[in-house]
Amino acid sequence: MQIALLIYPGFTSLDAVGPFEVLSRLPAADARFVSAGGGPIEADQPNFVLPSVPLSEVTRPDLVVVAGGSTTQQYLENETILDWLRTAHESARWTTSVCTGSLLLGAAGLLTGGRATSHWCELESLRVFGAEPVSERVVVHDRVITSAGVSSGIDMALRLVDLLEGAEYAQGVQLAIEYDPQPPYDAGSMAKAPQAVAEMVRGVFKEHYGPSWAEVQSAKTD
Amino acid sequence: MQIALLIYPGFTSLDAVGPFEVLSRLPAADARFVSAGGGPIEADQPNFVLPSVPLSEVTRPDLVVVAGGSTTQQYLENETILDWLRTAHESARWTTSVCTGSLLLGAAGLLTGGRATSHWCELESLRVFGAEPVSERVVVHDRVITSAGVSSGIDMALRLVDLLEGAEYAQGVQLAIEYDPQPPYDAGSMAKAPQAVAEMVRGVFKEHYGPSWAEVQSAKTD
Repeated sequence: MQIALLIYPGFTSLDAVGPFEVLSRLPAADARFVSAGGGPIEADQPNFVLPSVPLSEVTRPDLVVVAGGSTTQQYLENETILDWLRTAHESARWTTSVCTGSLLLGAAGLLTGGRATSHWCELESLRVFGAEPVSERVVVHDRVITSAGVSSGIDMALRLVDLLEGAEYAQGVQLAIEYDPQPPYDAGSMAKAPQAVAEMVRGVFKEHYGPSWAEVQSAKTD
Repeated sequence: MQIALLIYPGFTSLDAVGPFEVLSRLPAADARFVSAGGGPIEADQPNFVLPSVPLSEVTRPDLVVVAGGSTTQQYLENETILDWLRTAHESARWTTSVCTGSLLLGAAGLLTGGRATSHWCELESLRVFGAEPVSERVVVHDRVITSAGVSSGIDMALRLVDLLEGAEYAQGVQLAIEYDPQPPYDAGSMAKAPQAVAEMVRGVFKEHYGPSWAEVQSAKTD
């Protein structure tokens, strides 16, 4: 079971590591991080670096997971990555994304005409790629699974384990990582967060990361 | 805000990365992985390596997070680590653990007489260190916070953000990482998992990781 987790400079650490932790527990799992050129890849927070192998060395993975990050927009026209995604998807059992990773699936043409999700900050940008954005935690469409922001990769990966190995195995993995979530607040989505918090975080994101991909494209057209 | 996340060969990736992702979002956060000797540290799953700085370079962290792993028992008599924990705890605002990381806090003498938790597979072992084991997700006692298995570090870190920066900030971080957990099953604790699954996973753990620390100590006494 070859599992390729695609990362790039500026990826978000938990986007990649949540699914890694879960999917490494599949039978005969061979999970590895892959990147355009291979080598150590820095995350979007300082002091976090993961080793990776070049895309050219993992051409027929069984599972593909694309991590999101603060820099995803910079890779949406990277043909090395997009070509690899298209080719890998032809033979993969499942092609998946966490957070803004779904923009890369969209740019590769893998979401056209389908329902998909992303981090709330880029959810509307999925329309640029002909997808229907839906505000759900995990969205399964055809052989593609997209999931919401950062921490959603854990839920997505458990869903994937369920699809591949069935309920008992998926529950076993959940128990192994003791995933019985109890956040101190119920503020983890735009619909649930208090309005003042939602506005504050939207402002911080706008300031740190700039306009969404949809806004960038719309500005080009004007 | 200096944040030291203690890892060692055989640590569990999500134990360390869940809190890293959350705590890196604290104001003026300087989060880094630390290990006895520094350098790259391999996790308990293949193909996962994190860079670390030596313990000697981070002597007065504001926050300490100790990750669990498959190999924690091997470090319970490692005086380099235990001495560092004792010294760091003297000046730290909070000393915390994820999963079996609490055994290291116990071995350093930081849990004596207090309530504490751990991964279910080592929960009873906390008694060896004079702590009262409690099956809760996150346990706050004095300036020490222990949390349950692997994924619990996300909940623990959000609780810590709440204690340090208040509700609005903690909710903001939760929304930034879109932590609105929706696992496909409700099987993430020993109390909630179907009995057959609990027995299966207990068996797998026993086979892979051997006896718990409490069992090891009890066998020595016999």
